[in-house]
Amino acid sequence: MNMNRRNFFSTVTTGTIGLVAIPEILSAAMPSGEKKHKGVLSSLKTGDVILFQGDSITDAGREKVNQLANSPASFGSGYAFMAGANLLNTMASSQFSIYNRGISGNKVFQLAERWQKDCLDLKPNILSILIGVNDFWHKLNGKYDGTVEKYENDYRQLLTLTKKMLPEIKLVICEPFAVQDGSAVDEKWFPEFDGYRASAKKLADEFESIFIPYQTIFDEAQKHAPGKYWTGDGVHPSMAGNSLMAEAWLKAVK
Amino acid sequence: MNMNRRNFFSTVTTGTIGLVAIPEILSAAMPSGEKKHKGVLSSLKTGDVILFQGDSITDAGREKVNQLANSPASFGSGYAFMAGANLLNTMASSQFSIYNRGISGNKVFQLAERWQKDCLDLKPNILSILIGVNDFWHKLNGKYDGTVEKYENDYRQLLTLTKKMLPEIKLVICEPFAVQDGSAVDEKWFPEFDGYRASAKKLADEFESIFIPYQTIFDEAQKHAPGKYWTGDGVHPSMAGNSLMAEAWLKAVK
Repeated sequence: MNMNRRNFFSTVTTGTIGLVAIPEILSAAMPSGEKKHKGVLSSLKTGDVILFQGDSITDAGREKVNQLANSPASFGSGYAFMAGANLLNTMASSQFSIYNRGISGNKVFQLAERWQKDCLDLKPNILSILIGVNDFWHKLNGKYDGTVEKYENDYRQLLTLTKKMLPEIKLVICEPFAVQDGSAVDEKWFPEFDGYRASAKKLADEFESIFIPYQTIFDEAQKHAPGKYWTGDGVHPSMAGNSLMAEAWLKAVK
Repeated sequence: MNMNRRNFFSTVTTGTIGLVAIPEILSAAMPSGEKKHKGVLSSLKTGDVILFQGDSITDAGREKVNQLANSPASFGSGYAFMAGANLLNTMASSQFSIYNRGISGNKVFQLAERWQKDCLDLKPNILSILIGVNDFWHKLNGKYDGTVEKYENDYRQLLTLTKKMLPEIKLVICEPFAVQDGSAVDEKWFPEFDGYRASAKKLADEFESIFIPYQTIFDEAQKHAPGKYWTGDGVHPSMAGNSLMAEAWLKAVK
């Protein structure tokens, strides 16, 4: 996406095209045929626990004093809030307990440090993890010395422990993503960052997880609006980007 | 809804009913035939402005320093965030600027006090207002001496001014609601509170506004889960309640 924002919009909004809704982003990025795990939610029982884990994208400004299940303040303003709220609304009689335990700036090893209290103790039936952008970004800006191998090994260790402690758990692994049109993401990110995405996909296969291809989704979304529209800095999603992420999560998991 | 929460769930979750999704709440509460204003959004132009106004239900913990358009932090964790984000996602090429200017505790006269900067100056093309529960509640608990007549007159004056200053504006008037199962709402609210709902409906008709029947929607929702599930105190919606409200808003306006 090298097109200037103004030019982009004056192109796509010629005639009436500008006001057409665009559900086709997810049809293109997540063809139904690729869905390996249909109806995961329908295998859950009343009162089951769903946990969102990750970094700032998941955190999304949530309050961290009470950290209640199913509470708007404890969810912040991100994709986890929208996806969780949709489940609580459309499957109201299932009485799910849904938690957000994302923490800004986290890398995989930091998830591991708080895994007992922020994951295992909650005994989730579904665990969704989005982690990896800081493992690369903090290395790039000299704040961290981890490699893609460390990311993959730490992540594998975390998932192995999780499956050992909670054998029935259903995993959702979200692809880390970076949008080059954003203010914090430039050509120095690639191709190295792609290795982190590949590791996440590899682990999703190893652990028979649902995989949500967020990089593919944001690449597809840029056919409809510039990258900056979906995420200002290329890392943190806008309202539109969060809504797209929630929609993709629900499409993959429901 | 006098049923105890535990009994309610043990009733509705017998067999597999508990895991069925429930889109039928809105089909029942908002039959398509009642929709007078179809496709309001399709009449908007690229770059148009959409404004959410109201009290704490709209505010939903938003930051009030920057109050940016289309910004997750500036939207809080409520129905306005979810409805706005959905529009920005599904109508990405329209480049809407969407604002939230709800403020906790507001009654109609307090909207009026800040109307120039928090509404007219923003020049909205669509203005959505949810106001009224505090006009009644603060009177009930002795903090305010306004009546339902003052509510209706103040509201009419506000809408008249708005239409005078912005003749092309499209209005969305949301019905104030109270859910009796909630901790803050008891039989003392009724039937007096119903008058505030009736005034909002009357004004929606007078000003040819879209009207969103939130009381009807929450009444219908209680057929699927107890009132406390949708709003803990009967006034402030839960995650499920906010999602249901956003869905209703989108159904009415799109």
